[in-house]
Amino acid sequence: MANILFIGAGMMASALTIPAAENGNKICLAGSPLDDEIIAEIERTGYHKTLKRQLPQGIETCRADGIAGRISDADLILCGVSSFGVEWFKNEIIPLIPERTPVLAVTKGMMQDGDAFISYPEYYEKSTGKRISFNAIGGPCTSYELADHDYSAVTFCGRDIETLRTLKSYFATAYYRVSLSTDIRGVECAVALKNAYALAVSLAIGMSYKREGREFEHYNSQAALFGQAIREMTGLLALFGGDASNLMLGAGDLYVTIFGGRTRKLGTLLGTGMPFNEAMDALSGITLESVVIAGRTAEALRRFAAAGKARIEDYPLLCHVEELITGKSLVNVPWEKFEYEFIRK
Amino acid sequence: MANILFIGAGMMASALTIPAAENGNKICLAGSPLDDEIIAEIERTGYHKTLKRQLPQGIETCRADGIAGRISDADLILCGVSSFGVEWFKNEIIPLIPERTPVLAVTKGMMQDGDAFISYPEYYEKSTGKRISFNAIGGPCTSYELADHDYSAVTFCGRDIETLRTLKSYFATAYYRVSLSTDIRGVECAVALKNAYALAVSLAIGMSYKREGREFEHYNSQAALFGQAIREMTGLLALFGGDASNLMLGAGDLYVTIFGGRTRKLGTLLGTGMPFNEAMDALSGITLESVVIAGRTAEALRRFAAAGKARIEDYPLLCHVEELITGKSLVNVPWEKFEYEFIRK
Repeated sequence: MANILFIGAGMMASALTIPAAENGNKICLAGSPLDDEIIAEIERTGYHKTLKRQLPQGIETCRADGIAGRISDADLILCGVSSFGVEWFKNEIIPLIPERTPVLAVTKGMMQDGDAFISYPEYYEKSTGKRISFNAIGGPCTSYELADHDYSAVTFCGRDIETLRTLKSYFATAYYRVSLSTDIRGVECAVALKNAYALAVSLAIGMSYKREGREFEHYNSQAALFGQAIREMTGLLALFGGDASNLMLGAGDLYVTIFGGRTRKLGTLLGTGMPFNEAMDALSGITLESVVIAGRTAEALRRFAAAGKARIEDYPLLCHVEELITGKSLVNVPWEKFEYEFIRK
Repeated sequence: MANILFIGAGMMASALTIPAAENGNKICLAGSPLDDEIIAEIERTGYHKTLKRQLPQGIETCRADGIAGRISDADLILCGVSSFGVEWFKNEIIPLIPERTPVLAVTKGMMQDGDAFISYPEYYEKSTGKRISFNAIGGPCTSYELADHDYSAVTFCGRDIETLRTLKSYFATAYYRVSLSTDIRGVECAVALKNAYALAVSLAIGMSYKREGREFEHYNSQAALFGQAIREMTGLLALFGGDASNLMLGAGDLYVTIFGGRTRKLGTLLGTGMPFNEAMDALSGITLESVVIAGRTAEALRRFAAAGKARIEDYPLLCHVEELITGKSLVNVPWEKFEYEFIRK
């Protein structure tokens, strides 16, 4: 099928080598400068130490210093860096990519750009004078479960539907189902926002633990926060320029993130009343994109509000999350601010 | 505050006596003809045998044959019957209610009415020549957790916002947060649909159990079905005439229902590949409103499609649920039908 150069050997990129290899693609998994240990272990045993799974036989590997020599052979660059690797990818890798070679990124996030709040593919586009096709993957898919062949539904987004169809042909399998969208902003916004709101919904888990004095979950309060999250995400998606139909991606991704790992743990600790600094200490060593995206989204909201395009009071849950992660408040969910009166015209 | 006559001593109505009593209302909990055992136990010990909680001290009780004598004193009738009690309430109780006395119903469901798919408050309105105010409660709230004072967010819906504000004053507490909406169809449709789709999402739980040979849950597949559920619910809400903003109620309610009880159990059994009849036998004795609403919604969809107002192929998950509950198919989720191409204009 294709020569695919994976750049960044994080969990999601590495899990994607599995459907890609099953489809007969030729794969090289290249570590970022932070991935030397991961690559070394794969080279010794084929085992990915953070994904905790065997990778497919027959894939090649290389270190960051070998990337330059491999780019010209690639039919596709899979950008596998986390949001903390975006600047490295932009500065060190994009200048090496020929215009004929599309990029498909797994990085989730948004960033401020002048008056707009844009996705990473858009940021990469603006950063280079070259006409490279930047595409991305959104939707609910954790790397562990993809590696375990659980059914997953994702959306590839990019400007050109034909390019997207080609990229889909490299990765789609019976268990990895791929939809396509030319609404890059909408897809990326929906799946980035869910990180901030997964933190918010998880607060109810910690509140329940605290009240019960044991690890016992109530769900009414989680559902109340989930509903409020959907409401605020709907508003933000429109505000930032995404099509409303992408809410299904955000909702599915919110659902899976509440059950998965790091963001849930942080929200749960904050929900028990723990200050942010202590919670971060307790979770030391893990990267928390949810904190980054929550802070950036709140900042973007303030800018839109200052320009008269949004009302901050329509987003009380996001504002409370920001109070928590900036240490301005301990958990104190503003339930009264979620109440509304809707009068149908 | 008010004299509230609760008619039907099911779990949700009975749990609502708790915030109502805390607010100082005078409460009578009247059993339907099916509730004699429940009422007898409450009269002996104050304990509600299916809710498994003590009810507030000082509430009165009566049997079905005592309802007629108490209606004229009531400031509010709380209709607590399940969807299986709707005809009884319509035929036996509504004729006794004076026009001055509003009704607030907890029953979730929708039904066909000519060309339209309407909510129970609308059905009650049409059934009587009297101008009674029929209102209802929607939103994610399980009775157990309400009884345990977990934070819950619900929406009271009805035609008149002033009446809704009065009803809210009877029930709202710090932990029972009440929003208001005059979009009866939208609120009721959103929260009824979630029953059908909670069954659908739960299929992935059973599929995971089956594959793993133990009670182990994967979440990517649940999230894929959750996202598809949100997509189909968005379409159905518009089709049946509800405002899009109600999706937050459906999403929150979907979330809580996947974790709660009967519908999850049925979906899980079907997801393992068990035929519907066997699953119903295994769950004998429990009422399954999700099966009723899924069947009715699929039938309504067919009618709208026949009239050229909808496309059946836009709702593959609902159609699969109907195949399951009518015994036409074992679980075989049509993943390929969920894939889409969205081209932004």
